[in-house]
Amino acid sequence: MRGLFLVLEGAEGSGKSTQVQKLGEWLRSLGFAHRLTREPGGTAVGEELRAVMLHGGDISAETELLVALAARAAHVHAVVQPALLAGEVVVCDRYELSTFAYQGLARGLGLEQVKSLNAFATRGLRADLTIVLDVSAREGEARRTRARAEFDRIERAGIDFHDRVAEAYRLLASTEPAVVLVDGRAAEEAVHAEILRLLQGRFSETFPSKAG
Amino acid sequence: MRGLFLVLEGAEGSGKSTQVQKLGEWLRSLGFAHRLTREPGGTAVGEELRAVMLHGGDISAETELLVALAARAAHVHAVVQPALLAGEVVVCDRYELSTFAYQGLARGLGLEQVKSLNAFATRGLRADLTIVLDVSAREGEARRTRARAEFDRIERAGIDFHDRVAEAYRLLASTEPAVVLVDGRAAEEAVHAEILRLLQGRFSETFPSKAG
Repeated sequence: MRGLFLVLEGAEGSGKSTQVQKLGEWLRSLGFAHRLTREPGGTAVGEELRAVMLHGGDISAETELLVALAARAAHVHAVVQPALLAGEVVVCDRYELSTFAYQGLARGLGLEQVKSLNAFATRGLRADLTIVLDVSAREGEARRTRARAEFDRIERAGIDFHDRVAEAYRLLASTEPAVVLVDGRAAEEAVHAEILRLLQGRFSETFPSKAG
Repeated sequence: MRGLFLVLEGAEGSGKSTQVQKLGEWLRSLGFAHRLTREPGGTAVGEELRAVMLHGGDISAETELLVALAARAAHVHAVVQPALLAGEVVVCDRYELSTFAYQGLARGLGLEQVKSLNAFATRGLRADLTIVLDVSAREGEARRTRARAEFDRIERAGIDFHDRVAEAYRLLASTEPAVVLVDGRAAEEAVHAEILRLLQGRFSETFPSKAG
């Protein structure tokens, strides 16, 4: 049986990475074979491309998109597809919705153009469910500052850009199939509980409510 | 006045890089502002991507293509377009015809698909003239072996693959606009003289024959 492909999305500082970890702990506690991974990255080549994308100099929007898609193609081919074929639950920190929001809408390359290029990179593989953690650009920035995180090239792009990203995620959540928005401002445990509730609702045969 | 964009193409061992250098010497002797460059590479980010492409592990054909296109987008944006706008003669070792031949035809991703993705990366910038140095796959391999060159990931792909590349170049030379085939088996000086003859024929106002 093909596994389940779950994606967590959101702006910088939305708490995605924490929620991916908590979801992984929950899956482990239930005994599910699972794989936690992230984009850009997730493979040796992908991590090299991630470094180019996040720490490279002044690159054009087209270059940024193509590097992200190259990393995605490697990741789908080497990690996501094999794990799904092996029946695992794959939980990925960012996938195609990031590209739609950042490069397609916030950078202005155009959603249809970006979707067409992305479909080539993924060979059409879509997530079974994408959960967007919704926080405002200011809230995300404040959280990253509190965490004293070093800002990468995209994180440094300025509040207007990150406002456009947050707005893009909201638009995509209301128009794309299998995408839901969750209030990312709540406490970690409350967000985690909301994510479990969503999974148990959508995939009730895989995750019966009593398992939560 | 916009400069002139010249590209040398051909299989591994076809003598492209030597001919780019010789063309550069000729342009310098005539006092032309010019720029010699290469793909994949040509920028700091592009050289990092070149390393991923040529020395990375087992990557999929889609990943290989997207990495090449990311490097191209960076190169066009940061090097080729600015040099052409400054009126320079740009001589590039490989450009889009490589991608059409290697990934579109020899790897089987499909020429129309690859052209469409490539047009996004280049914003439609095409070379004024592309010269393909035609050598057989066996001749190219023999030359590289004589040069004791270390083979990269693509060079190691096997004689059948390189046969397909050589055949793809011949097909493209007969179907694409502004592409000409030159016999790459001749001596270096003879190939150089043939390239000058072509340039003086096509761009007679820029390169009057007496200048040769």
